[in-house]
Amino acid sequence: MADLAVDGRIRAVIENVAPAVDCGRFAAKRIVGDRVVVEADCFADGHEALAARLLWRREAETGWRETPMSERGNDCWRGSFLVEAPGRYCYAVTAWVDAFLSWRRDLARREDPTDVQVAARIGATLIAAAAERAAGAERSALAERAQALRQDRPASELKALGLEESLALIAARHPDRRFATTSTALPLVVDIERARCGAWYELFPRSTATEPGRHGTFRDCEARLGHIAAMGFDVLYLPPVHPIGRTYRKGRNNALTATEDDVGSPWAIGTAEGGHNALHPQLGTLIDFRRLVAKAREHGLAIALDIAFQCSPDHPYVTAHPEWFRRRPDGSVQYAENPPKKYQNIYPFDFESADWRGLWGELKDIVHFWIGEGVSIFRVDNPHTKAFGFWEWAIAEIKRAHPETIFLAEAFTRPKVMHRLAKLGFTQSYTYFAWRNTKRELTDYFTELAHGPGRDYFRPNVWPNTPDILTEYLQFGGRPAFMARLVLAGTLAASYGIYGPAFELAERAPREPGSEEYLDSEKYQLRTWELDRADSLAAFIGRVNRARRENPALQSDASLRFVPVDNEQLIAYLKSVPKPENTVLAVVNLDPHHAQSGWVELDLDALGVDARAPYQMHELLTGARYLWSGPRNFVRLDPARAPAHLFVLRRRVRTERDFDYFL
Amino acid sequence: MADLAVDGRIRAVIENVAPAVDCGRFAAKRIVGDRVVVEADCFADGHEALAARLLWRREAETGWRETPMSERGNDCWRGSFLVEAPGRYCYAVTAWVDAFLSWRRDLARREDPTDVQVAARIGATLIAAAAERAAGAERSALAERAQALRQDRPASELKALGLEESLALIAARHPDRRFATTSTALPLVVDIERARCGAWYELFPRSTATEPGRHGTFRDCEARLGHIAAMGFDVLYLPPVHPIGRTYRKGRNNALTATEDDVGSPWAIGTAEGGHNALHPQLGTLIDFRRLVAKAREHGLAIALDIAFQCSPDHPYVTAHPEWFRRRPDGSVQYAENPPKKYQNIYPFDFESADWRGLWGELKDIVHFWIGEGVSIFRVDNPHTKAFGFWEWAIAEIKRAHPETIFLAEAFTRPKVMHRLAKLGFTQSYTYFAWRNTKRELTDYFTELAHGPGRDYFRPNVWPNTPDILTEYLQFGGRPAFMARLVLAGTLAASYGIYGPAFELAERAPREPGSEEYLDSEKYQLRTWELDRADSLAAFIGRVNRARRENPALQSDASLRFVPVDNEQLIAYLKSVPKPENTVLAVVNLDPHHAQSGWVELDLDALGVDARAPYQMHELLTGARYLWSGPRNFVRLDPARAPAHLFVLRRRVRTERDFDYFL
Repeated sequence: MADLAVDGRIRAVIENVAPAVDCGRFAAKRIVGDRVVVEADCFADGHEALAARLLWRREAETGWRETPMSERGNDCWRGSFLVEAPGRYCYAVTAWVDAFLSWRRDLARREDPTDVQVAARIGATLIAAAAERAAGAERSALAERAQALRQDRPASELKALGLEESLALIAARHPDRRFATTSTALPLVVDIERARCGAWYELFPRSTATEPGRHGTFRDCEARLGHIAAMGFDVLYLPPVHPIGRTYRKGRNNALTATEDDVGSPWAIGTAEGGHNALHPQLGTLIDFRRLVAKAREHGLAIALDIAFQCSPDHPYVTAHPEWFRRRPDGSVQYAENPPKKYQNIYPFDFESADWRGLWGELKDIVHFWIGEGVSIFRVDNPHTKAFGFWEWAIAEIKRAHPETIFLAEAFTRPKVMHRLAKLGFTQSYTYFAWRNTKRELTDYFTELAHGPGRDYFRPNVWPNTPDILTEYLQFGGRPAFMARLVLAGTLAASYGIYGPAFELAERAPREPGSEEYLDSEKYQLRTWELDRADSLAAFIGRVNRARRENPALQSDASLRFVPVDNEQLIAYLKSVPKPENTVLAVVNLDPHHAQSGWVELDLDALGVDARAPYQMHELLTGARYLWSGPRNFVRLDPARAPAHLFVLRRRVRTERDFDYFL
Repeated sequence: MADLAVDGRIRAVIENVAPAVDCGRFAAKRIVGDRVVVEADCFADGHEALAARLLWRREAETGWRETPMSERGNDCWRGSFLVEAPGRYCYAVTAWVDAFLSWRRDLARREDPTDVQVAARIGATLIAAAAERAAGAERSALAERAQALRQDRPASELKALGLEESLALIAARHPDRRFATTSTALPLVVDIERARCGAWYELFPRSTATEPGRHGTFRDCEARLGHIAAMGFDVLYLPPVHPIGRTYRKGRNNALTATEDDVGSPWAIGTAEGGHNALHPQLGTLIDFRRLVAKAREHGLAIALDIAFQCSPDHPYVTAHPEWFRRRPDGSVQYAENPPKKYQNIYPFDFESADWRGLWGELKDIVHFWIGEGVSIFRVDNPHTKAFGFWEWAIAEIKRAHPETIFLAEAFTRPKVMHRLAKLGFTQSYTYFAWRNTKRELTDYFTELAHGPGRDYFRPNVWPNTPDILTEYLQFGGRPAFMARLVLAGTLAASYGIYGPAFELAERAPREPGSEEYLDSEKYQLRTWELDRADSLAAFIGRVNRARRENPALQSDASLRFVPVDNEQLIAYLKSVPKPENTVLAVVNLDPHHAQSGWVELDLDALGVDARAPYQMHELLTGARYLWSGPRNFVRLDPARAPAHLFVLRRRVRTERDFDYFL
């Protein structure tokens, strides 16, 4: 609110600085190497000229760096800065009514010689003042010009002196900013490249033994790395690797009682042998784990761990920190429940504990512990059932020392809750992709993800399956459904993942009809996977991941645009980046049972394609090359062969010779 | 940013409180008698039940009033409060995880008797705590129930005791709000009814004499009041009534030099006889002015004055406050200019004056002076050429003592600037209506005004003409163009105005071809108007204003919806209010030269009309009654007779008898 205590001579206003997440309450997100474009509406009363600059700095720095902003029309100004390291930044906009620029603009329009002479004297005063703010050669140049403008010369000469471009450049560098307005500073988080793009592969280490019935180990995992890397994955995500509780342990297929040899759910964390900082003894030692991390790195794979902040009744915390759990009237610990269902194998933490500070600190230290062991990617289990304030504090604290850390929020809950988690600091977020199957659903959802209000903070990581999610589409669509969903996941989203062995082998038997749970789920038992089966999708997955690696267009989401096809079962979309120029068109048959065909319609003008000449579409999954011409071209996809095309658009066929070359 | 200094047990979050103008930087606007609906996204981690309340108060009050909010789905909560007096209010939202509501919801689902018995003991503790927060009978009732739940009873009985509705109502009134979150308070300005709706009539008092050549007076204006009131206007707006400068006075048709008998522009304010607090001697005395205000009130007309903060070179301020003006190098005062054009009859104030506080105070006092003379509506000339900070401060200061004051911003400048003026406190705003002529232009612009982001703070007041604006459409469209634009202005916008005598008589000669200025404009000379001419539009204007008065649907803008018509020259739109039920359909022929016809398409379901029965459309401009049936009906408008229909929809024709009655 304006009042007499603020200097009333501040006349410029700044509105609508963007990006801004919830009015600056949360940070926008960008990636190392990005040019951060900032826009704001800047204007003042009256008709004088305005100047605006973008201020930015790393959060820990004290002084602002500055870069000019320019007007884009309709009082909207734009500037940008390059972020070269991960971490927190902030930015603001400053603007002022610029007397020198106003004077120069008006001088150009003045016609009356007397008027020009008066203006020259006004300008001399302004330029002399700019000289006072300058130093060295610039100071002398300005002082000299001020002098010259005060001399008795013909109007045309004075006008030329005042309008000279080089003078303007110098004077504009030393503006009178006494009455500048500066917006509030807005926060920005810059993450490493992997936060934008990556292919994730999830596996249960205990199911990596090649002999049926033997409990897999980290050493067995090592043996699997080559296979995973060959498919082109970037991240290997392991469900919890900690000791598994015995009390109320679940049996196979989520049975309420376990037999002696049931291995239990890895998410029931903690026994007398240790909790979240310990390793399940049957998997191996900390030495083995470190070795796995190192070997994975050699294969170009980063290990991601699961962070599941909950305890089995046997967890050491239950006795060491009874104050972190809610009590029932009989003094026992309150287990997880969703009445009438009870989950007696799980004790949730009580985030209303009087010792919430102790609890927060301990949980944060768990993440620090694993960072110390070489892990910097964490998939966080059910983050929406822990206090939002905890996550905001913990992620900020951890990323202050380790800005390269990535936190993926496993939340399939209400939209506002998922967005809150993304805003408060989660690097990436699970999505509703698994349940978006039709063309309309996929188009609406991915348009919202790429272009909606979340685009500055919500980074999708899409999964066609997880150990908890075997969708109806996969259950009934057979192998073609897996192929289609893989292409959709891997090309609609720069970050995607699969629950690996089950996906490779198109495992699709549900626990019972109507269930989204896997039959004989690895969550509750050991499995042995016949990875060299002839019908394995490994080679196909490898082709999709290679296309992702070789095409920068597929490595970010901002450019996604859906394209018309005159068949509701065919979906088509483009992604495109300018440097190096790369445009990919995906066409996917959503019907896993029948061949579908249709006409794909491209906006050739927008794509910079000469509509009069043919252009080449290079299909990445088969290597085939097609010649298209004009905006509408025919596509037919038979799910029995391949339910998708991934085309790279090769444009600029300028001469007959170029044209021949492609043939 | 969450940190360890804030209580981490606060788990509910509140986002997106609406209305909020620029994150609460500016006030939303409402009208006395409005129910202010506030929405917010409220949620918490986990699955416990949430409670939310809307807090509100008049700004000057210290304690909040509270009203419950309810969930509308997707975590969006809504509450409302009634504003019964003009002035500033504020509101906020508070929300908390409610242990009692969670307990009760879960109790309803519990099946296992042991489980119910444990739950009863947990509930007893919660209810006993609620009893501590309650008093009197409620305290006893709660304490008793807590006692009962602790007793050894059958599970079914305990469950019934816990679920009883009356208990829930009492307990919910005494929640545990220790860990509640409260949003920041948002400001609200409540204005009087006239701020939402009014028909304005502008006239130059000096042109009210009945004998040609005589300078009109306030007494002459009095004689005109009956005529204006009979046309149904609410506000009589007078251009500046102050002494008019002599130095550089403009002659007729804006000639650079004036003759001895030229009266000059009323906007060149100030002579030795006085400035903004003085009256032009030829108009009359302050006594005469007061009498005019009182007589106008008797006719149901409020007088609006023009606030033009600029000076003629003869204004007393120029010598009394030389520091309020910018100086040229020769010491003379800088006149207004837009190089190469000079406006030497006008000195603008320098809002970068070192004595800006003195200037602000003086300008504010001018408004106070006229409020003291019985004026509470001000049309502010060129507000966009004065510092924004001044207006924000001055309007807030004035409205603190006089919340009934209305400020109309005369700004036809850039959209962001116009919106800023509305946000910082102007009650109403001029619009681009004069230059929106086609169906597409009108539809887009009025949809934006009624439903765009400005809807909470930008109240349009639309004018088909002003002394500065005689549009091409009016110049070339003849009398039908005036009629069409009048209906559009008066029904698209709840607030509208005309520059009266010239509009009534369809005056349409421009100063020169291509100009939007009037020939022989009243801005620079006296005019005598032949108001009783046979072709006067006075009767037609009266019919439109009567329709506005008799139909609440036309008295606000929020319900505006455009309706399809299959002719680009016909525009149709609905306005509707529920209490008392009133729905008006306007159909206007935008082509002033030819009869146009087409089919108007109504969404009968949305309008609550039985599609199987005919319904009556009562035409307000002619009194004719039409029977329509089904969604598509034919309309033909001949500009030579009447270019518009204003229909009231009479629905609920339920029986043959009802139906006959309408015939």
